[in-house]
Amino acid sequence: MKNSFDNYAKEGLHEECGVFGIFGDGTINPAYACYNGLLALQHRGQESCGIAVTDDGVIDYHKDMGLVTEVFNNRILDSLQGQMGIAHVRYSTAGGSVLENSQPLVMRYVKGTLAVAHNGNLTNALEIRSQLEQTGAIFQTTIDSEAICYVIARERLKCHSVEEAVARTMRVIKGAYSLLVMSPRKLIAARDPHGFRPLCMGKYNDSVVFASESAALDACGAKFIRDIEPGEIVVVDNKEIRSIKPDFGEEKKQSLCVFEYIYFARSDSFIDGISVYEARKQAGRILAREFPVEADMVVGVPESGIDAAIGYSEESGIPYEKAIVKNSYIGRTFIKPSQKERMKSVRIKLNPIADKIKGKRVVIIDDSIVRGTTVDRIVTMLREAGAKEVHMRISSPPFMWPCYYGTDIPSRGELIACNHTVEEIRQLSGADSLGYLPADSLREMLHNAPIGFCDACFSGNYPAETTKKTFKGKERGGMNFDKKC
Amino acid sequence: MKNSFDNYAKEGLHEECGVFGIFGDGTINPAYACYNGLLALQHRGQESCGIAVTDDGVIDYHKDMGLVTEVFNNRILDSLQGQMGIAHVRYSTAGGSVLENSQPLVMRYVKGTLAVAHNGNLTNALEIRSQLEQTGAIFQTTIDSEAICYVIARERLKCHSVEEAVARTMRVIKGAYSLLVMSPRKLIAARDPHGFRPLCMGKYNDSVVFASESAALDACGAKFIRDIEPGEIVVVDNKEIRSIKPDFGEEKKQSLCVFEYIYFARSDSFIDGISVYEARKQAGRILAREFPVEADMVVGVPESGIDAAIGYSEESGIPYEKAIVKNSYIGRTFIKPSQKERMKSVRIKLNPIADKIKGKRVVIIDDSIVRGTTVDRIVTMLREAGAKEVHMRISSPPFMWPCYYGTDIPSRGELIACNHTVEEIRQLSGADSLGYLPADSLREMLHNAPIGFCDACFSGNYPAETTKKTFKGKERGGMNFDKKC
Amino acid sequence: MKNSFDNYAKEGLHEECGVFGIFGDGTINPAYACYNGLLALQHRGQESCGIAVTDDGVIDYHKDMGLVTEVFNNRILDSLQGQMGIAHVRYSTAGGSVLENSQPLVMRYVKGTLAVAHNGNLTNALEIRSQLEQTGAIFQTTIDSEAICYVIARERLKCHSVEEAVARTMRVIKGAYSLLVMSPRKLIAARDPHGFRPLCMGKYNDSVVFASESAALDACGAKFIRDIEPGEIVVVDNKEIRSIKPDFGEEKKQSLCVFEYIYFARSDSFIDGISVYEARKQAGRILAREFPVEADMVVGVPESGIDAAIGYSEESGIPYEKAIVKNSYIGRTFIKPSQKERMKSVRIKLNPIADKIKGKRVVIIDDSIVRGTTVDRIVTMLREAGAKEVHMRISSPPFMWPCYYGTDIPSRGELIACNHTVEEIRQLSGADSLGYLPADSLREMLHNAPIGFCDACFSGNYPAETTKKTFKGKERGGMNFDKKC
Amino acid sequence: MKNSFDNYAKEGLHEECGVFGIFGDGTINPAYACYNGLLALQHRGQESCGIAVTDDGVIDYHKDMGLVTEVFNNRILDSLQGQMGIAHVRYSTAGGSVLENSQPLVMRYVKGTLAVAHNGNLTNALEIRSQLEQTGAIFQTTIDSEAICYVIARERLKCHSVEEAVARTMRVIKGAYSLLVMSPRKLIAARDPHGFRPLCMGKYNDSVVFASESAALDACGAKFIRDIEPGEIVVVDNKEIRSIKPDFGEEKKQSLCVFEYIYFARSDSFIDGISVYEARKQAGRILAREFPVEADMVVGVPESGIDAAIGYSEESGIPYEKAIVKNSYIGRTFIKPSQKERMKSVRIKLNPIADKIKGKRVVIIDDSIVRGTTVDRIVTMLREAGAKEVHMRISSPPFMWPCYYGTDIPSRGELIACNHTVEEIRQLSGADSLGYLPADSLREMLHNAPIGFCDACFSGNYPAETTKKTFKGKERGGMNFDKKC
Repeated sequence: MKNSFDNYAKEGLHEECGVFGIFGDGTINPAYACYNGLLALQHRGQESCGIAVTDDGVIDYHKDMGLVTEVFNNRILDSLQGQMGIAHVRYSTAGGSVLENSQPLVMRYVKGTLAVAHNGNLTNALEIRSQLEQTGAIFQTTIDSEAICYVIARERLKCHSVEEAVARTMRVIKGAYSLLVMSPRKLIAARDPHGFRPLCMGKYNDSVVFASESAALDACGAKFIRDIEPGEIVVVDNKEIRSIKPDFGEEKKQSLCVFEYIYFARSDSFIDGISVYEARKQAGRILAREFPVEADMVVGVPESGIDAAIGYSEESGIPYEKAIVKNSYIGRTFIKPSQKERMKSVRIKLNPIADKIKGKRVVIIDDSIVRGTTVDRIVTMLREAGAKEVHMRISSPPFMWPCYYGTDIPSRGELIACNHTVEEIRQLSGADSLGYLPADSLREMLHNAPIGFCDACFSGNYPAETTKKTFKGKERGGMNFDKKC
Repeated sequence: MKNSFDNYAKEGLHEECGVFGIFGDGTINPAYACYNGLLALQHRGQESCGIAVTDDGVIDYHKDMGLVTEVFNNRILDSLQGQMGIAHVRYSTAGGSVLENSQPLVMRYVKGTLAVAHNGNLTNALEIRSQLEQTGAIFQTTIDSEAICYVIARERLKCHSVEEAVARTMRVIKGAYSLLVMSPRKLIAARDPHGFRPLCMGKYNDSVVFASESAALDACGAKFIRDIEPGEIVVVDNKEIRSIKPDFGEEKKQSLCVFEYIYFARSDSFIDGISVYEARKQAGRILAREFPVEADMVVGVPESGIDAAIGYSEESGIPYEKAIVKNSYIGRTFIKPSQKERMKSVRIKLNPIADKIKGKRVVIIDDSIVRGTTVDRIVTMLREAGAKEVHMRISSPPFMWPCYYGTDIPSRGELIACNHTVEEIRQLSGADSLGYLPADSLREMLHNAPIGFCDACFSGNYPAETTKKTFKGKERGGMNFDKKC
Repeated sequence: MKNSFDNYAKEGLHEECGVFGIFGDGTINPAYACYNGLLALQHRGQESCGIAVTDDGVIDYHKDMGLVTEVFNNRILDSLQGQMGIAHVRYSTAGGSVLENSQPLVMRYVKGTLAVAHNGNLTNALEIRSQLEQTGAIFQTTIDSEAICYVIARERLKCHSVEEAVARTMRVIKGAYSLLVMSPRKLIAARDPHGFRPLCMGKYNDSVVFASESAALDACGAKFIRDIEPGEIVVVDNKEIRSIKPDFGEEKKQSLCVFEYIYFARSDSFIDGISVYEARKQAGRILAREFPVEADMVVGVPESGIDAAIGYSEESGIPYEKAIVKNSYIGRTFIKPSQKERMKSVRIKLNPIADKIKGKRVVIIDDSIVRGTTVDRIVTMLREAGAKEVHMRISSPPFMWPCYYGTDIPSRGELIACNHTVEEIRQLSGADSLGYLPADSLREMLHNAPIGFCDACFSGNYPAETTKKTFKGKERGGMNFDKKC
Repeated sequence: MKNSFDNYAKEGLHEECGVFGIFGDGTINPAYACYNGLLALQHRGQESCGIAVTDDGVIDYHKDMGLVTEVFNNRILDSLQGQMGIAHVRYSTAGGSVLENSQPLVMRYVKGTLAVAHNGNLTNALEIRSQLEQTGAIFQTTIDSEAICYVIARERLKCHSVEEAVARTMRVIKGAYSLLVMSPRKLIAARDPHGFRPLCMGKYNDSVVFASESAALDACGAKFIRDIEPGEIVVVDNKEIRSIKPDFGEEKKQSLCVFEYIYFARSDSFIDGISVYEARKQAGRILAREFPVEADMVVGVPESGIDAAIGYSEESGIPYEKAIVKNSYIGRTFIKPSQKERMKSVRIKLNPIADKIKGKRVVIIDDSIVRGTTVDRIVTMLREAGAKEVHMRISSPPFMWPCYYGTDIPSRGELIACNHTVEEIRQLSGADSLGYLPADSLREMLHNAPIGFCDACFSGNYPAETTKKTFKGKERGGMNFDKKC
């Protein structure tokens, strides 16, 4: 493993991740359940992954850089015997990704062993680290989870159970977190009081399963039971399943990340009661109503624009076509030929069906515009394929603000919508028309469901404190989720 | 490398592959063009791949087991300097896949070096090998390409150019082949007189490019020029591009593999003048007319059933929905949990959006049924998700006969349609109705284009000789293209 | 990385290691100097290795399981830029060897970054860990170095410099340690007050180099300056080299591990003023005087018995012969055929020159007998080669007691000398005579040099406290240095 | 695998290798016997290795670049089931080493499968290749073995058994070869009529074993039976062991490579009846008589100079000392620091015990001088260590002529002895005196045994035809056996 250790604020502490956990009843192998769950959550993080299992108080674990299918094999999974397990996938970042930042984090503390898997981003991690260092703490990673472990270990000294320590910890740490904690005898799930990041619970016979998304329950054969509520702790041990709701003083506003529906989550997941697929189709329908146009076909940018394109087609009556084909063999290690070759238009990852597009008026739908490079490339590609008109529709509002709650939106300087009007962006992209999902349609996108959500990246309305201190780090080391580049 | 050498007839000599070649004009790097081309052809073979380049008569090459992104990197591509190159991807087979069978095959012969990449299956390979052995030949691989190399080398002694040797070779070898041959100064493309396997030509400035599918031309930025005609040889050198049409005695009937349109090729390729995507949509439309049903939605089994589902929706007016989600992170190395865990229904690779399906009448479209295991799993999955009715439509006729021309249809004993009526298959699968594309609709699927095609796997009408001798080998070692299993 | 976390006492916390460090003056590349130094120390640990460099307060490091030549290459070394560096090799243990236990240990604490490399074994590590856990500490490894880091971090809060923190730490930790600590601006070397493990200092121009053995100074071109004294701290920064001698209350008796001379160290090292090669030859001379015999040749068991054999030959006048040949290509990954094959006598690692031995009286010299399996094999091998008489001489006294100071002598139950008289051992081995180096000759072996040494493993006279608590762990998980098995 | 194919004459066709074969009787596992045998022969080739086994006519094999311990593991060995096996290690060459040149070469020919392992160098390989190409042969490697396979395959058509084909082949191929050929039912060993390269036979119960050196018989537990005679074929099948002596027309002079005794072979091998160790010691004794000197110690350059040093000490009475220590962890992948760092004297691979050497008169013995760089470095190292006098003795005569029979002596332009007198070499090296083994002492070195040997590299007296055509190739691509660099 190779790493650089300096001011950790420089590093990308902010990523989207996925967590999975199981407390087994003997009818399912926890390590294999974790493996299947991680496969279903792979889209939430491709940098590193890990599984930790506890067998009679002894933790065995395996983690490494790479995809789930690269890191695990039968031999390794067979060696991970235990009654319960937690697992984690971490987002692929440019450069700063290192093995010791992989999760679950496994450690010894005063009461034995502890493993922690965490999705989200603390807004006071630096303060906590600094305070801990002032009392002699040492840190071996740059991830928030290590600070969480420390706080749990310290709080555990002041109370009588690990779940109480977790509850106390939740009053210390601030920001976004969906957390799985495995102690020698208990599996604990916790979600921050705002409920920024998703976390749900299912059952396979009497085994209790936790996952970032319901699709991961499906993948291991478990049935969805319910979402973990914001601010809730669920404790599972050999006797029972208990829910704990720590008192956080003031009432916190539910603030589920709306971008989970727009892009992060899988189409086949249900989050806080809402189908991701239906939300995306709904966004398409809204776009069709708000930005109607006469056209010959509706096309989605694969994969994230397809659901909205189907919705747009449904609402508008314009036929849906699969006129752009994605090469599914191109992953992270793809050698970008643009570095080596100066071909004007290389259609390696996405390729239009030119014959289909030639002379046609095309409505093309993508989920978002970050820096503007992808939209430019898409429009150019369609033009070169002979499209008569290109009408770009975006199934989210313009990105205007950074995120402090676990996603990696670039700094404002890089966000095209911060520096350009919609008309300017249209001109830059070369599209004939451009329509963004109106920010006030987000609730309608969620079918007016009675849930609170966070749309700070669009509105600037931050439901909780932000992280002044790490802002500079983000400016330098931030990475984006513009997954199509 | 690990291999077993015995009666090569036992091994799967029959696979679907992809070839790519370029004779450069200095405005494009041949090795990177090959890399991009192979990426676009990866679906035709995931077992091994290779690139050979010729620089002033000296061949450099690199090949290995694995995907294109695994086998190549910038360092390797940079080391492959040359004016022209040929490249190959080979199908992933169970067990018998070994490094020395990877292509291009590179060798020395009386006139210097020669590299050969080949897609197809000779029907007289065993006879040729046997004849060659009777005159002292030795064989180090079990691929047809080695026999082709030998014949070229021997014919070269009797004539005055390598293209003439290729022409003479084409009168010796029988069966299916799309061939790229690279000599010290020439790049030669050849297609068997029946035109079983596709092969097309494009241009990037004055560079000449050959590829199994037009999508690979797109991927390297080249423009499609035309398909190589059945029985045609195209020779490229520093001076010119020449077409040669050897005399094969009798007229051969054009017999392009119709399954290229149904399943093998990419949606965005055009083969012998026909759009693969349009053919697939057309199959869906025909199914809608031939097997209409009242239903709430049309769903395609990803990815291969989606085009036909869009066509079915278009024709029937039943809404198209993306109600089954495919996990794009699951590749070849996926640990099948069924081996280790006996969970009844694991929805890891495909997962239905249960909420969407519940209580609904679903038309589900897949491209083919081979052994019947996949269709059974799909229907069960939809039933468990709550579908009220499941109407299965298959965008190809029933598989009834083995293929001798380069694909790996299992033996008749394994083909469910050989042993069961359509009604029996429906009952076995649990579907409420089942409709196959009528065999006499295949021409309509191709929009009545005036091309000859091979539908022997459906009809038993073999347009050329078959391979009696290898039949037994196929029975033992055959492998299937049931890619969803 | 795969690990098991439970009661760490179970794991082998006790190993022989090697450390290397350099504070550069700009005339030598610290990373390459570390690499060369580690190559020279590889015999002290083959499990894992690592190098950490500090560049303007930022630590870069690389460590992994494997040999130095396996873990490092030019690309990695070139990426490790910095003014100073520390490096470590760790002993190869059976099973419990894991990546996170590799060194140097790199961490952040209140004053920035810190890297620690350590050779030895604390006798109060469990107490320290337990005390730290009682105040909320968490542990991510099972190595003593992590506890040392913690104590330094805590002590640093109470004083004004890192060297003072190290000095204070040395009053807390007990047992054996040679320590290199790298802070943002300083390189610190420290040796426990007993001086159990070696540590020396050299110079390359104005660069200051520290190493476990002087041979590592040679390897990077540095000149030996002096040994670090027991209980001494040497601090190097951009201004000066300073020696600090903390007050440890009572005077500690110098107790250099005598087994460094007998087996651990390289023949070409000088430790605390004494040549290892000369000590070994002297042991051979003493054996010749104490256990003379009429014989035709003296043979050393390669490599560790050769120096003493030369000494025995010199003293006795019996010719020295290289009658046993060692296969230098057999390393750690060697597949032991005895597991798979039941051949009676496999002479793979060592092979006698039968023709030379046949009918001869052979004096055969080895460095030690641990469990007795090797000596048995050697004698059998010589007998099978036709030796008329076999006279075994051992260049150390019988092992009788466990070591608590950083080596891994097995538990008493496994030590053959604890359970058998010398005559019994002779009979078991089948030798005609057997002579051990008398325990009271150890000082003579060191040429009566005025240094204090620890011979507790032979005498049971422990110069410092032992570790009751880990004894059980050793019994279970102990590993041996019987390198010839 | 990466390779370059052009004029194969450019490539190093000339290497030292090792072969091993076994025809099993059921009491020994052939694959594991091959593994143990290859371990013992590893010094003869570190580039690549392979094992092929035949089970009921089916050949399984595994070969790869790398050391035996890197290429094989239990899983692979367990998969290689069969009654007989042959194995090969190939010399490590700079750059041109590629997988397809690894051996055994496995192929199909008219009578089924054939595997060939070969040590040596044909002097008419180019002629044979050229003739074969003229009749339509293709070549996929650049090794002589492929030509041998071809000739066997062609001769097999003209006769009634594979052994007869081997005999006929031996009348076609010229030069040096020790050959193992495995057909479906037979194991055949053959040695060229001059007996240039060694080959011996042993038995393990009723299993018959062949190996390049007797030490490999020891390693698998087999007993030495006899050497294969020059020009002899030994055929083993289920019924018998038969010796065949083809008629080669004129009598060939036995010409065993004398450098096997001087450097190539292991000390513990016996070749054509002579102990390698005794020959080396005898060379040392001769040097002591021919070049006596007053000195304080005799030191051998490890490992190859040690045996002669012991002999010199014995004859002269000057004490033998191990004053230079070799680092046994430095293998092929060692990063040469001189490329990156300009340290004057890096003592990484060899390190003198300075204290021992200081002020002393040292006789230092090495096996040979090729280009002169090593001898220069050794003398400088001893001078820097303080030696008062350095007397260099070389246990072979000066290299003056290239070798055409399977070793890789550099071209004459690079041989220091071709361009300098002994006195000049002494001055260049900085030694106080220099003595080479007199060329007319070689027979005395072999204890006047009645065997014919080849000393062409010293004398220029070539016992058989040389290879005019490849000479230029050798000049360009030659590599040396100066293993100490």
